[in-house]
Order: sequence, then structure tokens, then C-alpha cells
Amino acid sequence: MLRIGSLEKLVHQLNRLPGIGPKTAQRLAYHILREPDLSFGLEEALIQVRETIHLCSSCFSFTDSPAQPPLCHYCLDTSRRDDVLCIVEEPSDIARVESSGVFRGRYHVLHGAISPLDNVGPDDLKISELMVRLESPTPIKEVILALDPDLEGDTTALYLARTLHERGIKVTRIASGVPLGSDIDYVDDRTLGRALENRVEL
Amino acid sequence: MLRIGSLEKLVHQLNRLPGIGPKTAQRLAYHILREPDLSFGLEEALIQVRETIHLCSSCFSFTDSPAQPPLCHYCLDTSRRDDVLCIVEEPSDIARVESSGVFRGRYHVLHGAISPLDNVGPDDLKISELMVRLESPTPIKEVILALDPDLEGDTTALYLARTLHERGIKVTRIASGVPLGSDIDYVDDRTLGRALENRVEL
Repeated sequence: MLRIGSLEKLVHQLNRLPGIGPKTAQRLAYHILREPDLSFGLEEALIQVRETIHLCSSCFSFTDSPAQPPLCHYCLDTSRRDDVLCIVEEPSDIARVESSGVFRGRYHVLHGAISPLDNVGPDDLKISELMVRLESPTPIKEVILALDPDLEGDTTALYLARTLHERGIKVTRIASGVPLGSDIDYVDDRTLGRALENRVEL
Repeated sequence: MLRIGSLEKLVHQLNRLPGIGPKTAQRLAYHILREPDLSFGLEEALIQVRETIHLCSSCFSFTDSPAQPPLCHYCLDTSRRDDVLCIVEEPSDIARVESSGVFRGRYHVLHGAISPLDNVGPDDLKISELMVRLESPTPIKEVILALDPDLEGDTTALYLARTLHERGIKVTRIASGVPLGSDIDYVDDRTLGRALENRVEL
């Protein structure tokens, strides 16, 4: 690595990105140094993202709506059902659920999952905001949990199910099982176990 | 991917970085969105790199020297030998050669290698600038080529050797062979072949 202060600083910042190690950060920095056009483009995009993107005041996904309070595309869409709510961990999960083309209700983003190991409790997530939404005039018939099938997702699902059952709301969770197109021979034990437990009658 | 203009633009710019595919670019963009501090840090580093780093007017490496004309750390270092020149493809190669601790002469950066397939000829590299340097009052005793041991590096080495021999300058190239600490069983055929050809008498 050449000992140039500003170059080392850029490497340090790139190294903070997830999955970018010191060696890759160096390679990226040298590339940026050779392409001023890319450097300008990145800078402009970073500024624009910071200036235009806010959290939706209803579902807490990202939105570039200039309205006050900001509302996202999915919360404004009048063709969607108001009585089904899909709960996800991150805004990016909304795009995944959408592209399945199966869900036409509303979303709510928790911004994480309960993780005692990382000191993340229910108060660190958008759960109190969820409770406020559930008191809206339109009654919610079903809350679908599209949480990751891992320890944190399981903990959060358990917590939400208990809290929402107390309010008499039906709670479901997306199914875990063998992915479509996969080979059962290559599916891990826990996934196959879950698929067996959750078998559906034909 | 959430359909937000500025977010898609950031993904597009990140996707222009080498080795960063569309999926990784999305993951990085979402991460940046969650960490304004990282976004600010990156922006500042990009600006600072553009504003402070220039090409050294002698060896064409990068330098943040504010002098006019700019001269890099290695060209200014009076303890280095002036009569041996190490030629590298990229500025980053200088740091690699330096960390070997074996070379104490001067450097010259070509900014690439001859590659007919990519339409890169001698005129696209800092070769005419090299010729000007060779006419300096201090005679150059030896030019060491630290070029990559690939097709482009070989072509460039051949071209430079011919041109420099015409001027009566001794040209050497760093040795290719089995890397230290490696297992001969795992070394590829071409490397082992080269190591045999370049065997040294003990």
C-alpha cells in the first residue's frame, strides 16, 4: 500500500463496507483513483441518497417521497388490502416479498430482529409503532411474519405472536421447507426436519 | 430491489467497481443507507483523494505532494540509488516491491502493459516519458522489469528489452518460479516449467 494519507483514508472507509476486506478495499481505492468519473458518480449518488431517502412514516420502509410526513409507494397504493400486514426485518425484504407476486397487503419494517446476544430487544425495533398501527380504524385480520428462519427471526416471531394473540389478532409465519427446484439429497438436516414437521395434506 | 431512483443510482455506481456484482452492490447500498456516518466518511474520502492525489512528474506513481511539479516520496528520497530503475505496471506495484525490502533504486510506472487485444500499444503507456528519463545526466546502469508474468507483461518486457538494448542499457526481469513456502506438488505446469528453465547454479 502506497503511504498516501488520503488514499489510506479511502481504503479505511471502503473497508467498513460489509464483505470488503482490507485487500479488496485497496483494489477498489486504486480503481477509483484511476477513474475520476466513477469517483464523481459515487460521490453524487451518496449525497443524493442521503438527501432524498427517508423512512416511511407508516411502514418504516425507505422512500424518496418529498411529502411531509413521508409515505412510501406501498402505503400510498390504494389497490392494496388494508387488513393484512406483512412484517419484515429490513426494507430490502419488502422488494423480495413483492417480487414473489403473491402478497397484496401492507408492510411493516421492524429494522432488525430481537437478539439478546447483540443487545437488541423489542424496544430497539419498530414494535411500539406496529402496536399503534394495529389500533387504526381498519381492523387487521391477519399479520404475516416474513422473518428470517434463524435464531433471531424465531425469537422475534415468538415474541410478536404472544403480543398479538393477546390482542386477538391472527398471526401466521411464512413456511420453512425445501426450496423449489432443489435436490432433497443436498438439503441440510434442519431444513428437511422442518419441512417434515410442516408437511401439508394434499 | 426497492424502486427508489437515488438508491438505484447508488447501486449502479457501486456495481461499476471491479468485482462488485449487482447483488453485492445492492447489499452495500442498503448498508450505506443504514449508516449515514459511513456515507459521509466515504464521500469525504472520495473528494479528498481527487483533490490531493496527482501523478508524480518523474516516475508517474501517485503522490499527495502539493509541490509544483509534484514529486513522490520515492523520487525525493536522497538515500536511494539513481542508477537503477525498476519498471512496474501500476503505482500499487511499487508498494509491493518496496515491502520486499530488496530494492533501493528509483521507480517508473507504465500505467498498464502492451495488450494488442485491448488496443493498448506502447504510445498508451508512459514509455516515451521513460525514454526522456533515460537521457538524464545520471546514467542508468540497469533497468529491472517488475512486470506481471502474463501475456501482456511478457509482450511489454520484450518490447522494452529491444528498445533499451538499442540504447545499450542492461535490462533484467524479476525471476518467475515456484513461490517460497509452496508445495511443488501444487504448483501449475507452466510455473514449474519456467522454474526449471530459469534454474540457478548453486
